[in-house]
Formats: sequence, C-alpha cells, structure tokens
Amino acid sequence: MSKLPSDHVLAQIADVLATRLPQNGGDPDTSYAARLLAKAPDAFLKKIGEEACELVMAAKDNTPDRIVAETADLWFHCLVALTHYGLRPEDVLAELAKRQGLSGLDEKAQRIQT
Amino acid sequence: MSKLPSDHVLAQIADVLATRLPQNGGDPDTSYAARLLAKAPDAFLKKIGEEACELVMAAKDNTPDRIVAETADLWFHCLVALTHYGLRPEDVLAELAKRQGLSGLDEKAQRIQT
Amino acid sequence: MSKLPSDHVLAQIADVLATRLPQNGGDPDTSYAARLLAKAPDAFLKKIGEEACELVMAAKDNTPDRIVAETADLWFHCLVALTHYGLRPEDVLAELAKRQGLSGLDEKAQRIQT
Amino acid sequence: MSKLPSDHVLAQIADVLATRLPQNGGDPDTSYAARLLAKAPDAFLKKIGEEACELVMAAKDNTPDRIVAETADLWFHCLVALTHYGLRPEDVLAELAKRQGLSGLDEKAQRIQT
Repeated sequence: MSKLPSDHVLAQIADVLATRLPQNGGDPDTSYAARLLAKAPDAFLKKIGEEACELVMAAKDNTPDRIVAETADLWFHCLVALTHYGLRPEDVLAELAKRQGLSGLDEKAQRIQT
Repeated sequence: MSKLPSDHVLAQIADVLATRLPQNGGDPDTSYAARLLAKAPDAFLKKIGEEACELVMAAKDNTPDRIVAETADLWFHCLVALTHYGLRPEDVLAELAKRQGLSGLDEKAQRIQT
Repeated sequence: MSKLPSDHVLAQIADVLATRLPQNGGDPDTSYAARLLAKAPDAFLKKIGEEACELVMAAKDNTPDRIVAETADLWFHCLVALTHYGLRPEDVLAELAKRQGLSGLDEKAQRIQT
Repeated sequence: MSKLPSDHVLAQIADVLATRLPQNGGDPDTSYAARLLAKAPDAFLKKIGEEACELVMAAKDNTPDRIVAETADLWFHCLVALTHYGLRPEDVLAELAKRQGLSGLDEKAQRIQT
C-alpha cells in the first residue's frame, strides 16, 4: 500500500531501456531512448553534460521542483548510458553501498566517508 | 531474499547524509559530506559538474569499471545536493516512475517516452 | 596582408553581440544571439555547459577539426554571457595577461604559473 | 598604442604553453601547465568541465569579478588542450571570424548568425 516508489524503479527503467537498444529492435521513430542509443555514445553523453548543468542552474535558483526534475533527467540519461555499455543501475547501487559500508560491517568508514 | 541492491540504497545514504547537515551536527572534520554541506551549495554543485564530465570521459574510454565508479560519484553528489535542499531520492524516483508510466496505466506514453 | 585573424576578433564579435541585447533592439526572430540574450541567463549558460561537454568529447575522439569547432562554440557562448553581464572579452584577456605576467616584469611567476 | 589587451594575449600564452609540453622539456615540478600536459588529456579536460560549471555558478550569482575570473580559467584550460593537440588559439579565432563573416563579405549571414 506504500505510495513510495518501488525499490526497483531504476531497474525497471533499465529493463525497458534494454529493449530500446538497436540490437534488440529499438525503434528511433517511436522511442526517444532508442534515438539516443542509435547515436551512441555522443547523443546521450552530451545530454549528461547538459542535464548536469541544468541541475546546477536549478539548484542556484533554489527551485525544488526543477531540482527534482533535472536530477531525474540526469539519472535517466545515466541509465541510457549504462544500458549502452551493458551495465545496470544495480552495479552503481552496489558500488554506492560498498562505499558507504551499508552492510554494517564498516561503521567507522561509513561515518568518515559520508 | 535478493542480494541485489535496490533503490533503497539511495534512501539509506540519504538518511546518513541528513545527519551530516550543519543544523544536525554534521562535523566537517570527520565527514566528507559534512564538509560539502558546510560549503553549500557551490562545493557540491561544482562536484556535480566535475563528476558528470568524468563520467563522459570514462564512457569515451569505454572502461566499464570507471563508468560505474563515476556514475556512483555523480549520483552520490546529487544525493548531497538533494539533502541540502530538503529533498529525497524518493522524490526523484517518483518523478522517474511517473514519466515512465511504470504504474502500467500509461503503456503507450511509456513506449514513446522511453 | 596577414592571413592570421585580427588581434581583435573577440572584441569585434562582442561589438556585434552588444547590438543583439534586448535593450539595444536585438531581434530574436532574425538573430540566434538575440534569442539567447532574450532568455538570459539560462539559455546561454546551458549552452556553455553543453559546449564544454562537446569539446571534451571531441578531444577524447582526437579530432582536430571538431576540437577547434567546439572550442569556437564554447568561446562564442562565453562572449554572449559576457555581453549579458556588461563585460567584455578584453576583461578576460586582461585577467589572463595579468596572471601570466606577460608584461615581462614577472618572469619567475610566469614560469611557475603557466 | 592601445593598452587594451588584444587576442594576441592568447597567442602569447599559447607560445609559453608549447614550452610546457613533455616533448619540449616541460617540468611538472615547476609548472602547473606542464603537470596538466604530462597527464593529458584527462587532467585538462576535467578542468574544462569543472571551470565551465564554475562559470555557470558565478553567472547565476551575478558576480562580475568571478565571471571574468572563471571565464579566464576556462579559456586558459582550453589553451592547454589546444596545445596538447597541436592546435593554436588562432585556429579558433579564424573559425569564429569565418562564422561571423567578419571579412565584411557576408553581412547578411553575420546578421542572422550572431
């Protein structure tokens, strides 16, 4: 009954993005992500630079709605990039978890790192 | 029982980051995130620009390990920014879920959008 | 008779850009720069982030023609930004000259700095 | 007799930067530029992304001195990149001049383009 987004939003989007790859029949005429993936990697890398800049501008403007929207844009284009390189958001989340010592085995490192 | 990391990792990191805010006693001497938050917003916004650029470079080099590490860096600094502005990764995930029509109510939009 | 570009290309472009400012009658319908200046500052700041990213990509691809073209794009949008803020390329060149000790009075600093 | 800096400043800096190349004996221990060039291209490309982001932040803060300083930082690191790739600021200025039709042969294009 939770209204919170699923724990697997990023993985679900990655699942959809995988179907947009050229080798999986992604159709640039009907899918924005397929268009980006068909022009890999520059099309989506350019968007990552652009969206990072727009997030910085939204932050300087202190506009919460735009900060959320630009972060979503940025993460979405990161997911497109991961898809192209055969990577998964779970890889990134595992890296983040490892660094933060979320296993509880590394409380001190966690305190210092984060 | 899955060992795969879920998006809940992002929420857990955000929980820790909230304790690094100056108003919550975050200590710049022992915490990297507290240092960034003490010099908000430029310290972490600059890192967002920097890490986005490094992700683009890692992608052009086609080095999967660095792509994952740089994406983790980028998302981490986005989490720091969200924390400063009183926002949560769940807000970003909800925005992404809404756009992608993951509820299943908007299959057509999903197909076109992603 | 020199084929080298004038010593004042940047200043000449800045002179033209000043006429594109809304307050000077710049017409967004006929001028790209006037369109950017009419939507100041986000329109041209976004381009600065975008062109910087494209320069980095061209550099990673080691394509000299694109490196030159992207640097020109980046500097052009910097000139648009300077125009909006009432600044001149000469201000930037003076800052660069000062740092480099090009007066010859500061050879040692120059050697270390550059 | 003008004391105003001209674009020749860029060429003078490029002349100095050429002496900082590893193959020309640039010494990373005494020269910042030599350090960047010794770790080409990522060291200076990362700075281009970083300085572009800082320029955007200075612009959003509407602080003229920082806008000038960050633009100088950005252009300086572009000059380092050009040096590494065997290019010159004159190449960029020629490209800009060509686009703007500064020869006077292309007044209409100039009006529309700029």
